[in-house]
Amino acid sequence: MSFLSDYGHADEFVGVCKAVMLGLAPDLTIVDISHEVPPHDVRSAALTLVRAVQYLPDGLVLAVVDPGVGTDRRAVAIETESGILLGPDNGLLAPAVAMIGGATRAVSLTNEEYHLAAPGPTFAGRDVLAPAAGFLASGVDIGELGDEVDPVSLTPGLVPLPNVEAGALVGEVWWVDRFGNCQLNMDPEELGALGVGPGAHLEVRFGGSARQARWVHTYADAKPSELVLLVDSYGLLALVLDRKSAAIDCGLRAGSAVTLVPPGGGA
Amino acid sequence: MSFLSDYGHADEFVGVCKAVMLGLAPDLTIVDISHEVPPHDVRSAALTLVRAVQYLPDGLVLAVVDPGVGTDRRAVAIETESGILLGPDNGLLAPAVAMIGGATRAVSLTNEEYHLAAPGPTFAGRDVLAPAAGFLASGVDIGELGDEVDPVSLTPGLVPLPNVEAGALVGEVWWVDRFGNCQLNMDPEELGALGVGPGAHLEVRFGGSARQARWVHTYADAKPSELVLLVDSYGLLALVLDRKSAAIDCGLRAGSAVTLVPPGGGA
Amino acid sequence: MSFLSDYGHADEFVGVCKAVMLGLAPDLTIVDISHEVPPHDVRSAALTLVRAVQYLPDGLVLAVVDPGVGTDRRAVAIETESGILLGPDNGLLAPAVAMIGGATRAVSLTNEEYHLAAPGPTFAGRDVLAPAAGFLASGVDIGELGDEVDPVSLTPGLVPLPNVEAGALVGEVWWVDRFGNCQLNMDPEELGALGVGPGAHLEVRFGGSARQARWVHTYADAKPSELVLLVDSYGLLALVLDRKSAAIDCGLRAGSAVTLVPPGGGA
Repeated sequence: MSFLSDYGHADEFVGVCKAVMLGLAPDLTIVDISHEVPPHDVRSAALTLVRAVQYLPDGLVLAVVDPGVGTDRRAVAIETESGILLGPDNGLLAPAVAMIGGATRAVSLTNEEYHLAAPGPTFAGRDVLAPAAGFLASGVDIGELGDEVDPVSLTPGLVPLPNVEAGALVGEVWWVDRFGNCQLNMDPEELGALGVGPGAHLEVRFGGSARQARWVHTYADAKPSELVLLVDSYGLLALVLDRKSAAIDCGLRAGSAVTLVPPGGGA
Repeated sequence: MSFLSDYGHADEFVGVCKAVMLGLAPDLTIVDISHEVPPHDVRSAALTLVRAVQYLPDGLVLAVVDPGVGTDRRAVAIETESGILLGPDNGLLAPAVAMIGGATRAVSLTNEEYHLAAPGPTFAGRDVLAPAAGFLASGVDIGELGDEVDPVSLTPGLVPLPNVEAGALVGEVWWVDRFGNCQLNMDPEELGALGVGPGAHLEVRFGGSARQARWVHTYADAKPSELVLLVDSYGLLALVLDRKSAAIDCGLRAGSAVTLVPPGGGA
Repeated sequence: MSFLSDYGHADEFVGVCKAVMLGLAPDLTIVDISHEVPPHDVRSAALTLVRAVQYLPDGLVLAVVDPGVGTDRRAVAIETESGILLGPDNGLLAPAVAMIGGATRAVSLTNEEYHLAAPGPTFAGRDVLAPAAGFLASGVDIGELGDEVDPVSLTPGLVPLPNVEAGALVGEVWWVDRFGNCQLNMDPEELGALGVGPGAHLEVRFGGSARQARWVHTYADAKPSELVLLVDSYGLLALVLDRKSAAIDCGLRAGSAVTLVPPGGGA
């Protein structure tokens, strides 16, 4: 199974959740997707999960980023044709569920027989979600874990898509990776529809600035310190510098607005 | 088995200790409790371990935070009714051992047949403790690992408890978690003994400041930016803000002194 | 198998590579050596790997630090008498391969039947190297993975050795560990050849400064705040302070030039 959270590595949260799962399913292999999602950043977690989900070896996924602790938002298990995803019902799972074919069944984790008794108020990751993952891995049917809910009632994901405005592609940075590469919420076909192809020089607007970027094939095509646009290994457009951080160079971060203006076009 | 240290993730220490254990016990499943304990911070490690120990699936625990490298402090294995804990004899293991029922037997890891030959001076984690954990996991009896020592001779833990002074509860922050929640070394019954219950407004004193905090049930009960007191998921009192860091807001960190003054009471 | 990279823990890279390997070899146990190698720092990764390699339980090692993404540098699998190492052919693997006896066979991972289909340009870790590791772990012969290459044609490692100049030992810091200990590229026999032994007071020169350091046996021999020299647990000389960071105290980092001048000697 796979595990994603905003728990970080300094506290014992990740280890305790794993211990709970392994206590219920001792032969479980757990792959950490990441636990360094920025605290409470559901959007970042949803994007991380959607990038990773197609590579996960089986369909049991636990994802916990939960700013709504103590509210009445549900903890859910969502069955798909490729397996089951567990997490808070706050939109975190939605893009990944959609990518692997949509929900076939969903359950709110209300059956307290499958919760862990807590020394204080419920800590959903440790007391509800990790036990549910452990019980599922040990063979318990999803239907045992609580009340079935209509998949249509699940909170949708909030993953912004780009717009075309005055001949330019208006979107945002979805992800800044460790190397400072800035993945945009744009795919190459959206530029293609504006008549732009590889080799073109585009104007890139962000934060009140405008810079030129050449559409190249790979990192090594960039000249030293040249800002370039390329299709990244996920198939999306990204702003990059070779061996340098485009994010630092441009002052971009996840969520920053970016506009791509075709050569000689745009407002 | 479970593994806790202050080794961090940048160096290869954690991986090498795991490799040593897996070389001796290839089927071992290792759960990382945390390796981001602040360097040499035995107290923080002891508190992390005591929070986690009740959730660990079996009783083999390796914990290494060892500012006394090169001194004559012992490396020990402590047998309890729930399993065996290994670490330096510097108080790190003591609170966890006490929580799971106390030591039934203790051994100083003096038998060099179960050490790893080192290319330089002994690195206790890699050369003594990880091999001991691996040999225990592979079936070696704890008595083989060295000289039995009287559990009474083990270094006690230093976990400060709160006091009542002039009608107020005087204690400290035990832990600031990733989200900035400040766990205090106080449980709700200690406030109850002062006639204070949920819903009360208390004065919180720290670092020369005084602020009000309402005792609420859960995070979501706090108004935006309101400092509140609640029972956390470990059953202890904590100072928190909803979706914000109470530690940053109040300038608190692990070890900071905190006094809770009941409504209309205290000095 | 063991896994080393500069991918960090914030992105999903490590998890996705593991998921790819486990999809091909579900019973694989993966030990993380480190994923916090500084981005693109091949030298630091090579030194980390060479320190760790002798402790790894079997010989399948995946190491990815790859500033040459998109260039024509090869991805290779190098067979040794102790197992197979996989990584980019940029010198990262060379010191570890040498330490465990040298290459007996090498293959460039050119056989696309053993690559993963990518949604965009190839991401070598995920699409070429992790699948190769997974296939090797599942029993595929190294010869299947691509064209055999002459081990002599592999990129050599760049690990600088010290020199003797005017009676002094001139070298550099190889590694600053989490505790601030500064491992030098010097072993005690090189000082011995200059007539210096334990107990001596040496002059240490770096960055325009000169300080005294006593050669001691262990951390605890150092007086508070005394800079000392000792043989570390890898058998190399290191500059350390007891329970403090020598790196911060001296302003040293990996790669800093250091000269050790024997008592009464040197230029």
